[in-house]
Amino acid sequence: MKVKIVAGVLEANDRIAANNRRLFDDNDLFVINLMSSPGAGKTTLLEKTITALAGEFRIGVIEGDIATDADARRIDALGVPVVQINTGGGCHLDGNMVRQGMDELPLSDLDILIIENVGNLVCPAEFNVGEDAKIMILSTTEGADKPLKYPLMFQESSVLLLNKMDLLPYTDFDLEKARKDSLMLNGDLEIIEVSCRTGDGLETWLEWMRERVGSRVVTA
Amino acid sequence: MKVKIVAGVLEANDRIAANNRRLFDDNDLFVINLMSSPGAGKTTLLEKTITALAGEFRIGVIEGDIATDADARRIDALGVPVVQINTGGGCHLDGNMVRQGMDELPLSDLDILIIENVGNLVCPAEFNVGEDAKIMILSTTEGADKPLKYPLMFQESSVLLLNKMDLLPYTDFDLEKARKDSLMLNGDLEIIEVSCRTGDGLETWLEWMRERVGSRVVTA
Repeated sequence: MKVKIVAGVLEANDRIAANNRRLFDDNDLFVINLMSSPGAGKTTLLEKTITALAGEFRIGVIEGDIATDADARRIDALGVPVVQINTGGGCHLDGNMVRQGMDELPLSDLDILIIENVGNLVCPAEFNVGEDAKIMILSTTEGADKPLKYPLMFQESSVLLLNKMDLLPYTDFDLEKARKDSLMLNGDLEIIEVSCRTGDGLETWLEWMRERVGSRVVTA
Repeated sequence: MKVKIVAGVLEANDRIAANNRRLFDDNDLFVINLMSSPGAGKTTLLEKTITALAGEFRIGVIEGDIATDADARRIDALGVPVVQINTGGGCHLDGNMVRQGMDELPLSDLDILIIENVGNLVCPAEFNVGEDAKIMILSTTEGADKPLKYPLMFQESSVLLLNKMDLLPYTDFDLEKARKDSLMLNGDLEIIEVSCRTGDGLETWLEWMRERVGSRVVTA
């Protein structure tokens, strides 16, 4: 019974996500769904990405949080269109919430839409929102046991950004284990080591974005 | 409609949690529900706590994870009774899962039961499992914006362990803001700064445990 309800929720979500997808396509938008544990560095990655790509692409942002508009204010300070969605306790964004955010954004004037999900390594991975790619962050301070303990997000993601590499010397993070287990779960996963604070490794991530967006968008 | 279903789930859970509570009382058990983001240090805190208190109290553990028995094996190595619950995708433990774990433990031979919840700063705070106290960990590497962004867990907890204090010099964690916002959300919250890795501050936490358990348990 419980399983049926859950399946119903996910099916309904998939229908809404497919509608979002059509709207994204109609507007030639490249859309990423950014996911991680709380505090892994999603908003800082966003700030660095927007600053680096602002001259090349028109970027919009949907910020998902349980409460506060703190992240939206950080993005708004960069001068790009941003919508804050407060889930009011909900632990993930779903297709319908993203749709509501889309309605507040000038989609036809954008090349890239970045959706920052609620900080949670579990539930966001279950809900498609119509994105082109799911991007996840794992920070070195979280430990190398996370891929095996939270497998779905690693399986669903196209890119794993290993963040806080600047803190690696102060942790016992096992880089080889994290890489090995992540690739065992998802052989297609692209793993990029970065430090959002120092900027190390971000050029590889920006190149990934440029390639993907470039294949969709003609103008810049 | 959706809201009604959620309310029904929470009410059913509260009934099961109340049954768990009676069983805990019947066995003079002090029970804590340990919650945090993934990788904040729950299992390491557990290891240090068990090692320090093993000569004084009889401790049992319920380990909640989405997948793997990695944490249960870490606890089993310390020679205390432990049960692993795999939620199979579920993002939190509920009363029923804990009840199933309880059935596998020698409750009458224990003084303390520690329930390590799934790593998630959101959903675990919504589900009572019959515990005496909710204990949460926030690590300095997660950032000081977390209390306002994930308020429920801070409101529900009796103790906030601020972990990874050894990494504080390498982060921009604003200790004063974290303290101020946490206490604004929950004036009764006891905040203890610790480093589970170095052991700094753990004595204050162990004293908190000793006082609470001592008021329930006569023998040791």
